[in-house]
Formats: sequence, C-alpha cells, structure tokens
Amino acid sequence: MMKIALDAMGGDFAPRENIEGALLAARLHGIPIVLVGDEKIIRQHLSRSRFSSDLIEIVHAAESIDMHERATAAIRSRRQTSMRVALELLKEKKVSAVISPGHTGAFMATSLLILGRFPGIERPAIAGYLPTLRGACVILDLGANVECRISHLLEFAIMGEVYARLIEKKDQPTIGLLSNGEEPSKGTALLREAHEQFKSRFPTYLGFVESKDIFKGKVDVVVCDGFIGNIFLKTTEGVIGAVYSLAKQDIQKNLFSKLIFGLFYLLFKNTIKNLGRRFDYAEYGAAPLLGLDGLVFVCHGRSSGKAIKNAILTARKSVEEHLLENLKVEVMKHSQTKSEAT
Amino acid sequence: MMKIALDAMGGDFAPRENIEGALLAARLHGIPIVLVGDEKIIRQHLSRSRFSSDLIEIVHAAESIDMHERATAAIRSRRQTSMRVALELLKEKKVSAVISPGHTGAFMATSLLILGRFPGIERPAIAGYLPTLRGACVILDLGANVECRISHLLEFAIMGEVYARLIEKKDQPTIGLLSNGEEPSKGTALLREAHEQFKSRFPTYLGFVESKDIFKGKVDVVVCDGFIGNIFLKTTEGVIGAVYSLAKQDIQKNLFSKLIFGLFYLLFKNTIKNLGRRFDYAEYGAAPLLGLDGLVFVCHGRSSGKAIKNAILTARKSVEEHLLENLKVEVMKHSQTKSEAT
Repeated sequence: MMKIALDAMGGDFAPRENIEGALLAARLHGIPIVLVGDEKIIRQHLSRSRFSSDLIEIVHAAESIDMHERATAAIRSRRQTSMRVALELLKEKKVSAVISPGHTGAFMATSLLILGRFPGIERPAIAGYLPTLRGACVILDLGANVECRISHLLEFAIMGEVYARLIEKKDQPTIGLLSNGEEPSKGTALLREAHEQFKSRFPTYLGFVESKDIFKGKVDVVVCDGFIGNIFLKTTEGVIGAVYSLAKQDIQKNLFSKLIFGLFYLLFKNTIKNLGRRFDYAEYGAAPLLGLDGLVFVCHGRSSGKAIKNAILTARKSVEEHLLENLKVEVMKHSQTKSEAT
Repeated sequence: MMKIALDAMGGDFAPRENIEGALLAARLHGIPIVLVGDEKIIRQHLSRSRFSSDLIEIVHAAESIDMHERATAAIRSRRQTSMRVALELLKEKKVSAVISPGHTGAFMATSLLILGRFPGIERPAIAGYLPTLRGACVILDLGANVECRISHLLEFAIMGEVYARLIEKKDQPTIGLLSNGEEPSKGTALLREAHEQFKSRFPTYLGFVESKDIFKGKVDVVVCDGFIGNIFLKTTEGVIGAVYSLAKQDIQKNLFSKLIFGLFYLLFKNTIKNLGRRFDYAEYGAAPLLGLDGLVFVCHGRSSGKAIKNAILTARKSVEEHLLENLKVEVMKHSQTKSEAT
C-alpha cells in the first residue's frame, strides 16, 4: 500500500495547514498519509479539525527545523527532526514519498544524507513547475546548485525531460537553456559550450531561451544553474506581488472605487483568482528534488492546506508513474556519453 | 545652447515614434533636438505630423542598423549609420547628449568606438530605472557585460550611486548586490568576495538583495553582472506580459464579460494604465550607458513617442545636473583604492 509521509512541522503555517492538506488528500482522494512531527501537537490539531480520516497515521519526531536556521548547523546537531524521521521512513520503504514545506536547504541536505544520489547523478536539483500561456513548463535548477559545470546542466536536462514526460504528460518535451538572448553568440562561455553539447545530445533541444519567452510556453523544459533559477523564480514572485500591491493601493483610495471594485470582483472572481493562482508559486504544489534515491518534494514555505493537498497529489502521481525508476534508467542511458563532458 | 541628438532611424517604430517624441519634447518643453537619419524620410514624416517646431534640426545619415543585425558586422561595414553620426556630433560637442531606441549592442559598441570610456572605467554598463512600491531604483548592469570581475561590479556601484543621487534625487542612496538570498553565505564565490569589498568601500552598502525585494523598494541601487541583469529585466517583462494575456483571454470569453469589463475600464482606466506603465519598461524612457565619455541613453526598441519624450527629459536633466562630470570625479576618487581589487 502506497503511503506518503508529510513533514507536519515544516513551513510558515505548520502544523495547521500541513494537517489540513493531509486531511483533504485523505478524505477527497483516499490517500494514506503519515504525519511526521510532535505527536501531542499533531493530535491537538487533528482533534480541533473540521475533518477527520482514518487514513491518517502519526509518527513522532521530537525536533523540527526553523525556516530561518542555518541548514548545516541544524542538520549536524539534531537527529530527531521531523524532516529526518520522514526521510528515514522513505529509506526503510515504509512510505513511497516524502513532502516538506520546510527549510529547502535543510531538506535537500538531509535528503542527501539519508537517501543519497542515484548512480550517474552528481548534483540533485530542485525542479519547479511553471504555468505558461501554453500549458506548464518544468524549470530546473531552482536553487540547489549555485555554481554548475556543464555535466550538471546535462543531468538537469535529462531529469527535467523525464519529469515533463511522465508527470506533465508532455509528448517529446522540448528543452531550452536559459540565457540572455536566443542567438548562439549570447550567454556566458560556459553556456555557449553547454549549447554545443546539448545540440549533439538532445534531439528536442531548441537552443537558448530568454526568460520572457518562458511564460509564452516556448519550451517544455528550461535548464539553468541554481543561481539563475533562483533569481528567475524570485523575480516572478516579486513582480506579481508588486502588481497586486499597486492595484490594491489604487482600489482602496476611496469608498466609490472600493464599491465598484467589489461589483467587478463578484463578476470576475474566477478570472482574478485564476490569475493569482497561475503565478503564485505557493499554490503550485510540489517541486521535486530530482536526482535523490527516493521521491522527495518540497513545497513553498507559505503553502496553504490546498497547496499541500496538491503536493500530495503530485507525489502520488510520481509514485504511480514510477518516476524514480524512469529517472534512473534515463540517466543510466546517458551516463556513458555524459562522462566525456566534464 | 544645449541640444540633444536623437537617432531617428533606430527602434521598432522608427522613424514615426522617434519623430513624434522629438516634437513633443520640443513643443512641450522647449528642448532643441537634432534628428539624425535619412533626411528625405524624416522630412516626409515631419510634414505629415500633427505638430511642428522650429526647435527641430536634421542631420543626414545615409545608413541605419536593423534591430536584428549582428552588432559587430554592422559597425565594421557601415560608417554612416544614424547612430554613429549622432555620436560623432556628441564627440565634436555639437550636441550635449545622444538618445537611441535602436540596437542596444550596436549602440554600446559604436559609443565605445567613438567616445571611449572615461578614466577609471574598464566596463561601461547599461543602467535601468525600475519603479518600485517605494519610488524608483537604479539597476545595473542590464546586459552590456555578460561576465564581470569584482572590479567591474565596484565600478557599477560607484556610477549607480551617482546616478541615483543626481537624477533620481535620492539622498545617500543605498546599494545592494543582487543575489539568491540575503545571508552572506549565499551567492557565488565571486559575489561573496564582492560582498566583502563592497562592505569596506561603500558606507551605504546594505548587503545581498533578493530580486523579489527590489520591487518592494528595499534598496536604491542594485548591482549585478549583465547576464543576471538581463535575466531579471526580461523576467519582469515576461511576467507582466503573461498577466495581461491571461486577463485578456478571460475577459474576451463572452460578450457579457466584455461589457462588464468595458464598464470597469471606464471607471478604473487610470489604475489600469498606471499599473501597466509602472512596469512596462518601454515606457520608462531612457537607460543611461554609464562609463562612456559622453552622455548616451538607450530606449526600449518598442518605445512610443511619449517614451522617447521621457527619454529626452532624462537626457536634459542629466546635462543640467552635470552627470558626466560628477561620474568622472566620483570614479577618480575611488580609483586609488579600486586598483587593489582585481
């Protein structure tokens, strides 16, 4: 029986929203969940919840990692964190996947410690799912690897392609390298060399892609180092936030504009909500940590119960589609040729 | 008498919008403009225009550079381009500043060729003006220098600080280094080393800044290499474009929603327009190329007449504030200490 472990103590709204998400997934989709964290606190929240489900199990973990801690210190000093206990359940095959909305750096580091990488992978990556004007797009790395060699970018491309194919159901996903222009003369020296290698290795490689074209849905898999990926992600988040704040300032200027906006909102509620949701990455659900020897998903720190539920659904799909096994096979296929490219 | 030269042939909407912008600046603000480009074409447009002004002068240039050409080839083969002729007027002190909405790469390269850099500058940069929730922010480099050394980032900071102080009227502008997190442990090895040097050199240096915080107005001057700057700029552009397209799709679904939106638009016209304008970088006006021995401004390729007019106003302000002289003095002051940092 497939069970999914959820770090109940990680994230800005833990454990409330985490538990809410677990209950939603259990009740609406019949998915068995293992909540990992302080048993007493979890039981209190469960008893107060509007929902209940006998698909929910609790595994106690005495400690947790704060969102603002230094990852390395937290991992070294504490061995009973909810993250670590959840990952040990996965290692022991008691669950099929682990989800945490907690400290991303600590989660990646603990996952590496407990699960390790699978053969052929030097650098696991955080892959994100980005809504575009033409369906979804997978982008990686979003921040696990600040400085990358070409061989790392190749690994990201292989894994991103498998993820887009199995989970996003893209037929022959196209691949692009994020750069400052489309022409092969653009980019850093490393990117230009990567471009040549991508061309010879991936039949669906389209070349350099500009960040503005990602939103148009020009490409299915975007590859970049974790520094660029992080800048890209946080810029997106920042622009959306600023647009909302500016609109709000203007709307709240006087009672008349508030009234008119209220009317407009009633009529266009879904448009406005969809817009927000399509670009709010707290709502996307889960970002897989690819390259680890286990299915591990990180959620945004501000994840709502609904976002947690979405993450659980993505995790279930990944288990059902045998994502890990497929990643391993594909990386193995490429590893012969890849070893030349360092 | 201060005159400003405008490349009439550069940009996607040239010469129509360029000439429109020049006429607006001349008529509304009494600024004398030298239009540089094909005299016959310019005269045709002037005769067709709704406006006229005797502050407009024409200097003929037989050639121009297409937006999609390779910069190097264009510069080598043609000596009578509108860009080059305009820059030669500046070199000969017949005008006080040059503006072009044309090919940015070609404009930077031709400026370097004709004007050169001023003492103490290794790498001129493209500085952008970004609207935030708390006033404006200067960000550089936006794309002139894909790979940068620490000494280049230091130059950018010095010049950005002067620009923010004189043109954006910021008192003691704060400086930040764009990175993937605020903690000094974040960033690339080069950024962490730059962080140490910035700390000791700039009293108003705040540390690393995340891209999402730029929009909140956390810092007055953002320093980054041209690759990152370009990714940042194009991501901003891409998100705004996507938000508009998604809203449009939803609104145009049926006649009823179109009608309601029409009503809403009538009431909230200014809010909507302001929102767009504050983040549409075609509307910002001018981005100065800092570090060249002359005042040179590039506009977005899709600049409207109004954006061109705004660019001309920025150029005038830069002349009046003695921007170039102030940049030279400040760079000179720092150059003694800077020479240690390569």
